[in-house]
Formats: sequence, structure tokens, C-alpha cells
Amino acid sequence: MSIPRDPGFASRLEGWQVRVEAELAARLPGSEVHPTRLHEALRYSVLNGGKRIRPALVYATARSLGLAESAVDGAACAVEFIHAYSLVHDDLPAMDNDDMRRGRPTCHKAFDEATAILVGDSLQVLAFQILATGHGLPKDPAIRLRLVELLAEGSGTGGMAGGQAIDLAAKGTALNISEVEEMHARKTGALIRASVLMGAYCDANLQRDVAQALDRYSRDIGLAFQIQDDLLDVEGDPKLLGKATGADQANNKPTYPAVAGVDASRKKMQELHASALDALEILGPAAAPLASLSDWLVLRRH
Amino acid sequence: MSIPRDPGFASRLEGWQVRVEAELAARLPGSEVHPTRLHEALRYSVLNGGKRIRPALVYATARSLGLAESAVDGAACAVEFIHAYSLVHDDLPAMDNDDMRRGRPTCHKAFDEATAILVGDSLQVLAFQILATGHGLPKDPAIRLRLVELLAEGSGTGGMAGGQAIDLAAKGTALNISEVEEMHARKTGALIRASVLMGAYCDANLQRDVAQALDRYSRDIGLAFQIQDDLLDVEGDPKLLGKATGADQANNKPTYPAVAGVDASRKKMQELHASALDALEILGPAAAPLASLSDWLVLRRH
Repeated sequence: MSIPRDPGFASRLEGWQVRVEAELAARLPGSEVHPTRLHEALRYSVLNGGKRIRPALVYATARSLGLAESAVDGAACAVEFIHAYSLVHDDLPAMDNDDMRRGRPTCHKAFDEATAILVGDSLQVLAFQILATGHGLPKDPAIRLRLVELLAEGSGTGGMAGGQAIDLAAKGTALNISEVEEMHARKTGALIRASVLMGAYCDANLQRDVAQALDRYSRDIGLAFQIQDDLLDVEGDPKLLGKATGADQANNKPTYPAVAGVDASRKKMQELHASALDALEILGPAAAPLASLSDWLVLRRH
Repeated sequence: MSIPRDPGFASRLEGWQVRVEAELAARLPGSEVHPTRLHEALRYSVLNGGKRIRPALVYATARSLGLAESAVDGAACAVEFIHAYSLVHDDLPAMDNDDMRRGRPTCHKAFDEATAILVGDSLQVLAFQILATGHGLPKDPAIRLRLVELLAEGSGTGGMAGGQAIDLAAKGTALNISEVEEMHARKTGALIRASVLMGAYCDANLQRDVAQALDRYSRDIGLAFQIQDDLLDVEGDPKLLGKATGADQANNKPTYPAVAGVDASRKKMQELHASALDALEILGPAAAPLASLSDWLVLRRH
């Protein structure tokens, strides 16, 4: 058997992007609220038309399990706030020192470093706060507490923050394939996994074997996504990407193609994609949105 | 009526400091766990013999309500992790640019700036993670979710992070008394309030009027604590404080004594102390630990 695709996926994805943009905007303090400069910087850093991949994972998982979007809006915003905070902090001079992101100045360039540090700190609070206050989430406190746990797992030293530490330490050193995989699994994979599992755990009737299958799906697409990211930096179209290619190599960043070669990387990505689709079998045709999302992640050109 | 004091308070306070030190150490990833440098920096930044005022507030509140220490250990650690993260980020060059804290190099001096940013980020995750996983806390998920909400309120832009933004923006500008009070209420007051209320909400039978009284107590001692901090910087003993005095004035920091004068500040502090004790009346003699804690906070010489 093979999971069918979602024929309306492209427009659905666009719908989720519009939806989460409005949800994020509504959950951020207004830029007229004191302290205004900090709130302005928060909105600047989040409401910038990102691809919203992590919210899309939350919504696609919910749809595959038959949950309404309104049951997972809070989870979609929480993962995106964490992702947005990580970009603001990663861009800081002491970290990756990036002046531009998505065609405009990074937060510390548009505002200042102190504000950028506080923006990241505040976005992280917002992410957890949303899960506690519960608007756009299941009412059951046990479910929402589980979401807090999953988000913390994905973003702490065992996840995203630990991955960034490994990445910083690895600049200019030679990692082997399993070390690169572990770095990727933490730095980007952990939050992608949290996105899928948070969507899944909003289902009060989630079965253990389904949870396990979605866990595998999320790990597979997490690494596939990052390999594709690495490949696009090697052979992508700068016009489509909106940024120069070759940055990873120039910065001595350990990447999958740098360690395994381009052909082996592409092969690994296809294997992970196939394995992710295989994991979805347990859900049958209902998993079409997640199958289409996996296609989109590995076939994307930017 | 007047609340009696806790005759064993001094040794009890020391007991709480020892207790929370062990709890914090047990909840931090070991420094041998990968990525080791980040985990080493986490432990360096937290396990440094601080006064542990916020955990003491959690324990004192619990004791005044008849709760066991083991029912609030998680809350005590969570507030201290948030406090520790705020110190690490506030010390950064882009913020207060402090090289030393408690007699040893600050995190970014002992390690590096990128690590210090990640340490703060990771400590914040740990704080929320503890509340979700629930070791040393009531089992009821609704209570733990309320703790997440209280901690987020205390640390976000309406609380600590917002206060730091106001503080940074205020350097060298003239604030009036109510602006200084608002800055203090957010920057230090909000987390002190969260500490008391998190201790209180661990009580499944917490009465509404008791919660309101403790809220008032926490707001009063929060501002009293900060005024005393400001006063010690003006007229404290550098030997007892372990740091030079006059730093606030040298840095053009808005402080209560700078705006209201030393005498009026001392008077205000005593009024707040009296008001805090007054709020405790509802609990009767059981509130002795909180009364003693308030004495300690406003009478301390360092």
C-alpha cells in the first residue's frame, strides 16, 4: 500500500500560513503596549512571512488525525515562537553574526543587541505561556502539560539549544557522518519532531502505535529536511533561495554533503523520505496531508 | 494582632539553601553529558552559592500553608533557574556588561558569549520542563499548568524581561517615582510574586482570599526588596556586599533613592514591610515563616 497525496495540499498549506500568521499576530503583545520598543521588536521578528514549516507540521498532523485546526492553533504558535526566538539568538554577533534574514535586517541590526537578546527570551516565555493559558488547544490540562514537556524536550540542551552548541563547537572541525546526523537531529530535528508530536498529542484518543509511527515519521523528515537545506546551500538557485549559496562552506560549517558527498546525501534524503512515508502506513489514506508535506519538504527548491 | 516570628528561621533558611542547592544540582544535566561545555557552563552559572531568595519564598509560603517541602521542590528550582538565566543574560556585554558576579567571572567571561546566550536559553527551558515533568510537585496537572502560567507571567514582557527592557531604556534618563516603581515591579517584583504564588498554588485547597493576601504580600516585599537593594548600593558595606557600592549611580541607573531620596526610600520600604505583614494576618500564626522572611529581606545588610 502507499499513502495517497492530498490533492488540495498547495492551497491548504497556503491557508495554514495565513491562519498561523493571524494567530501569531493576535498572541503577540501590541506594539503600542509598554515597553513599546521590545514589543515592536517581537512583532518585527515573528511577523516576517516565514515559510511556517513547523506550524504546517502541527496542522498536517492534526488533519491526519481528524482534529480541527482550532484544536491545535496554540501548539502551532508555540513551536513557531520557539523557532523565531532561535533565529533571533542564532543571528547575534556572538553566534552566527548574520546581518540579514529573509531580505531585511536581523533583529539586532534593526534594533540593538540587548533588545534582540530580550526578544528571544520573551518569545520563549510566550511559547510556554500559550500552552498554559490554552486558547486554541484542548481543555484537558494533562494534554497541555504534555505539550509543555514535548516543547521543552525539543528546545532544550537535548534538543535545539544543544544542537546549536554542537554546531558552534564544530565550526572548522571534522565531524563524521553520525556526528553530523546527531547535530542535525538536535538543532533542527528536535523541534520538527516536537511539532508533529504536539499536534498528535492534542488528540485525546491518540493510540500508542500511532504516536510511535509519527515519532519515526518526524525523525525521518527532520533529517531529510536538513539534508535538503544543506544541499540547497551547495547547489540551490540563489534567486529562489533569496540568499547566497555556499555560505555553509565559507563558514566552515559541518554539513551532510560536506561529509558524505552530494550524491550520497541525495540518496540518504530519498531513503529518509521513503521511510517517513512508510511510517505513515498505519494511518492509511488519512495520512495524505503528512505525505504531501513530506514531498514538499524534500522537493522544495527554497 | 500581629504575626509572630519563626524562632528557628535562620537555620530553616540555611536548610532551604542547602536543600535547593542539591535539588538544582540533581536537575541540571551532568557536565559529562554531551554537549559537555554547555552543560558545564549551566552548572557553573547556577551552582554558585547564591542567596536563593526566590526558592526561600517558595518554601516559606509552602510552610505557612502547611505543605511539605517535597511538594514544592520543583517550583523552587523553576524560579531559581529563571533567576539564574536572567543574571547570565543581564551580565552580557550588550546588556549590563559585568565581568564578575559573586566573586568570580560571569558566564560569558568564564566561557564565551555564545555559550552564555545558550546557557540562559537552556535554563529557561529547564524551568518550564521541571513544571511539566512534575518531580517534587503536586501530581494534579491543572496545578502544574497553573504554575507554568504564573512563571510565564513573572518572566515575560509583562514581568522580568519587560522590566529589563525598561531598565536598559531608562539609563541616563529621568524617571519619576511611579516609573521607577513600575520598572522594579517588573524587573524583580514579578518573579518574587511568582515565587510566592507558585508556592501557594501548590496547595490544592488554596482559598481565594488567601491567594489575594499572598499576592499583596508578594508585591509589597518585592518592591521593599528592590528599594533595600538600591539603598545598599548607596550606603551598604562593600565588604559585606562583596561588591563595590555606587555602581547604580556610576551607571546612571534609575533607582528609588536617586528619585525619592534616601530617607523617603527607607520610609517607603518600612511602609511596604508593614503592609506585607498586615496582609499575612489572614493566615494567623501559621504565617510566621513569611513574616520572618520579610524581616530578613528588608533588614539584610547584603
